[in-house]
Amino acid sequence: MKYKIGLDISGGDHAPEEIFKGALLARKQFKDDIVLIGVQSEIEEQIRKHNVDAGRFTIVDAPEKIGMGESPATSIRKKRNSSITIGMKMLRDKKIDAFVSCGNTGAAVCGATLQVGLMEGVERPGIGLVIPTKKGISMIVDVGANIDPKPIHLFQYGIMASVYANLVLGKNNPKVGLLNIGEEESKGPEYIRSVHKLFAETNVNFIGNLEAKDIFSGLCDCIVCDGFVGNVALKVSEGVAETMGKFLLDEIKKGFIGKIGLLLIMNSLKRVKRLMDYSEHGGAMLLGVDGIVIIGHGRSNALAVKNAVRVAIQELTHDVNLQMKTSINAICSSPKVQQTLGALGA
Amino acid sequence: MKYKIGLDISGGDHAPEEIFKGALLARKQFKDDIVLIGVQSEIEEQIRKHNVDAGRFTIVDAPEKIGMGESPATSIRKKRNSSITIGMKMLRDKKIDAFVSCGNTGAAVCGATLQVGLMEGVERPGIGLVIPTKKGISMIVDVGANIDPKPIHLFQYGIMASVYANLVLGKNNPKVGLLNIGEEESKGPEYIRSVHKLFAETNVNFIGNLEAKDIFSGLCDCIVCDGFVGNVALKVSEGVAETMGKFLLDEIKKGFIGKIGLLLIMNSLKRVKRLMDYSEHGGAMLLGVDGIVIIGHGRSNALAVKNAVRVAIQELTHDVNLQMKTSINAICSSPKVQQTLGALGA
Repeated sequence: MKYKIGLDISGGDHAPEEIFKGALLARKQFKDDIVLIGVQSEIEEQIRKHNVDAGRFTIVDAPEKIGMGESPATSIRKKRNSSITIGMKMLRDKKIDAFVSCGNTGAAVCGATLQVGLMEGVERPGIGLVIPTKKGISMIVDVGANIDPKPIHLFQYGIMASVYANLVLGKNNPKVGLLNIGEEESKGPEYIRSVHKLFAETNVNFIGNLEAKDIFSGLCDCIVCDGFVGNVALKVSEGVAETMGKFLLDEIKKGFIGKIGLLLIMNSLKRVKRLMDYSEHGGAMLLGVDGIVIIGHGRSNALAVKNAVRVAIQELTHDVNLQMKTSINAICSSPKVQQTLGALGA
Repeated sequence: MKYKIGLDISGGDHAPEEIFKGALLARKQFKDDIVLIGVQSEIEEQIRKHNVDAGRFTIVDAPEKIGMGESPATSIRKKRNSSITIGMKMLRDKKIDAFVSCGNTGAAVCGATLQVGLMEGVERPGIGLVIPTKKGISMIVDVGANIDPKPIHLFQYGIMASVYANLVLGKNNPKVGLLNIGEEESKGPEYIRSVHKLFAETNVNFIGNLEAKDIFSGLCDCIVCDGFVGNVALKVSEGVAETMGKFLLDEIKKGFIGKIGLLLIMNSLKRVKRLMDYSEHGGAMLLGVDGIVIIGHGRSNALAVKNAVRVAIQELTHDVNLQMKTSINAICSSPKVQQTLGALGA
């Protein structure tokens, strides 16, 4: 099947050029249609500059822009002709099958929630990201959508992540872990401890708490946390990788022998750097929205944009949202879960 | 001046042997007295095994042990003869000048709060840790004591960290930053946004929000966060460093050239590893307690134990707690801060 993927040309630190170049890469690699949503004159300029047959893309004019630092709620409310608002409305009206944006994350989450709406039964959307681990790949949800978490939110993130890991990442009976400051069930803040009680009533393969040092160990397939903690965890890892790289270069450059060694391992270093740059590869999935929304890193280059389009196509191909709705519905409406939710006062 | 440093011989993954060996190193390097607090027979066995003159240490029998996984509150309440409980009581009674433990962190925090008590005006203790950055060293507070944070807690962590960074780390007018998910003041959960209002009423060198990717950039001298987030940030960085190391070795070992390169940079790699192992070096300071308490990493080896003793001596030498009390008192009792606290409903 051929899908229509909406792409926000105005969003991202390197918009519109890198986004457009990403669209070109995607158009070359995938058979699906790309709908470019952004300031028409800027899109046309890119088309001229790159000497592209204009017929290869559908263009939708969105004359307003939401800046990376703007307040999400205000910008969505006031800028009705922004690429994010128009893209989300097109997604709601099924004029596109998925929407990809590397713009203001908060605005994308807010726009998706208000215009596309959440899946039935889902209380809050969460951003899911696939990360490399010592044993392959895992996913982590939420890395920045929800900074006011309740037990039901984290519980539903776990259910949705489990579906995604199974269908898209090919994990059989995915292991779901809860990011916490200790392995024991009694550790951590109360809202996190309550999540254990909810998972206990399901057949989700819940393995309990996971300590942050094991995020990259591959001990579990789906790591559940709130958006503040998840965002910090993600950004710390970027920072550490960068700092370690700098320390290593500084140390190596102190001696002649080290410099020769550096030349010999340069390719390996570059490959590791690419492997750790997961935040820029592909995009994050906005889980819980009643439509496919992919949020790319603000720093996305053309390759990352193309990969974000690939993530959208994967979700569509595996009909991930249908299965998520089914699972959320079945699990959250079960009497035992309802009873536990009641006892938690949620 | 010669200090008496109490050392918990029963706490830590490698207790009692590594702790005892750490005491030997400390005794050799520092002129101060080491008071060994733990199971007397185990201490005596170590003294025999290492063929040490028993007169070099004061021994205090603490027959009970608190395990690393035990509930902090329960263990402190029930095990009145544990090394942590006895050590904290000795600190309260000024029989020792500082107490160092690599045991159960929660129990140490709980014991310190209950037995030693907090400084006047301090609402919650926080664990401060010195970390390496691209521009030297910084400190981060709280990395695990307080998972139920309020604005006043984070505010006071910033004040105390500023004093420490000035007196011990030698930073002039230390820059204090608030760990958050964006740089703008409007970002993050409400309790964090409120902290801005409090700092605005002081002459603390508050630079606003700091994103997690910049924890290791050296952009600020004191990074303030709650204990859950701080603990996650710290442990993620351990995990990333380890995972990157593994990825790099895997990549390098794929080719002959890389293996030669690896040999040539091995020393640099080892130095970077040591640099990043900050969590095992020295100890963390339990700030806000009315006495010097140093919490070592559970994995501490002899060298880390010796360094934790050094951290205690540094705090004593600079009379850090006196200055912290003065600053907390002056800043928190100021009419503007009191007014802001009132407006926040705190």
